[in-house]
Amino acid sequence: MDDPAIVLLSGGLDSATVAAVAKRDGFRLYALSFSYGQRHAAELDAARTVAAQLQAKEHRVIDLDLRVFGGSALTADIPVPKDRSANDMESGIPVTYVPARNTIFLSYGLAYAEVVAASNIYIGVNALDYSGYPDCRPEYVTAYERMACLATKASVEGGNSMSIVAPLISLTKAEIIQLGTDLGIDYGVTVSCYEATPAGEACGRCDSCFLRKKGFVQAGVPDPTRYVEGAAAP
Amino acid sequence: MDDPAIVLLSGGLDSATVAAVAKRDGFRLYALSFSYGQRHAAELDAARTVAAQLQAKEHRVIDLDLRVFGGSALTADIPVPKDRSANDMESGIPVTYVPARNTIFLSYGLAYAEVVAASNIYIGVNALDYSGYPDCRPEYVTAYERMACLATKASVEGGNSMSIVAPLISLTKAEIIQLGTDLGIDYGVTVSCYEATPAGEACGRCDSCFLRKKGFVQAGVPDPTRYVEGAAAP
Repeated sequence: MDDPAIVLLSGGLDSATVAAVAKRDGFRLYALSFSYGQRHAAELDAARTVAAQLQAKEHRVIDLDLRVFGGSALTADIPVPKDRSANDMESGIPVTYVPARNTIFLSYGLAYAEVVAASNIYIGVNALDYSGYPDCRPEYVTAYERMACLATKASVEGGNSMSIVAPLISLTKAEIIQLGTDLGIDYGVTVSCYEATPAGEACGRCDSCFLRKKGFVQAGVPDPTRYVEGAAAP
Repeated sequence: MDDPAIVLLSGGLDSATVAAVAKRDGFRLYALSFSYGQRHAAELDAARTVAAQLQAKEHRVIDLDLRVFGGSALTADIPVPKDRSANDMESGIPVTYVPARNTIFLSYGLAYAEVVAASNIYIGVNALDYSGYPDCRPEYVTAYERMACLATKASVEGGNSMSIVAPLISLTKAEIIQLGTDLGIDYGVTVSCYEATPAGEACGRCDSCFLRKKGFVQAGVPDPTRYVEGAAAP
């Protein structure tokens, strides 16, 4: 089987794993990344590397205009929290939440799927590590899929339905790392840090670094992340 | 009542009518338009005029990157059909269909709604005149609304739900024109033509012009559309 599948590829650890899963599932990969400001330029470089390593058929990078998005630490001038404990992170929706982000990402993915006649869109949402994010919950993904099945030309013409595939949704970070390691992912090239340097070095102190570091420890896999000086892995 | 509502405002006849309906319904308007290529610059000017006339609280214009959208006459180098009969227009999905367009538009609307704490998103989809478009059907709108209700921060925190309001969905073009005329809309400033000139003059020959012209005739309302020379109203 060599059907096309869309993979939303941020260049982080989760989406790299999902891309490897889509490849394992036998799909021809059409990777889709989003460029929204300089803060994540290093992630895009990582996405390009992962797409190349997995021999994606195509990799498109969409420029996102974030003027409607105000109010998130990832898109506005709100400081990214540092050095928070797991308990801190469990209280409410983090300021790094971006309104409707996954909905917008999936919607571009849906457009791309129609254009290349794909019936599967892979996304690395995870309900455990990001329990505060509404658009990472299984019920959200199911509802998106139902909508997507009605949104496309194929749905009128009696063609294929649309599947939103979220293979990581109920995995712990350690399980994700184990899965990707088994599939040969080189996590050293991926970037998860909310404030990575342009060269892709991680701060080691934001929530995303915290979860990632802990995941490697729990998985018993050596952490290949490149940290900025003074922020060594635990 | 002075609650905020998002209105997707293209600058065409339908969305101008929807904006007037949202205002009639007592909402404070947050208008949202999309810029995707020069072909529709005249529509954006029209959107700005309509937003100003309806005293919108805000009007944002989002730049859309269409690199995933290939394959539509509105975004690629496919000729817009001209001089088609009503019968021609009923056969299948028109080449002017843009993959997942309403899904993407609504998703930006959803982000905007979260930011301004709106619980209503108005959209001018219509199931009669655009029967070939999957994302203009009532079942699509319902499915989008269900998804949207699960997608937002408020849905986790026990706040408001999200309504996708599509007041034109089952109206004929003549009924839409009658409704907007009753609400005081100046249709002379709106632009529906797929190939309007930069000054906003309509070609009079594309499907959109055809439906609009017929609508004014059937509504018995004088057609204020500015046509290019030689393409007079019927």
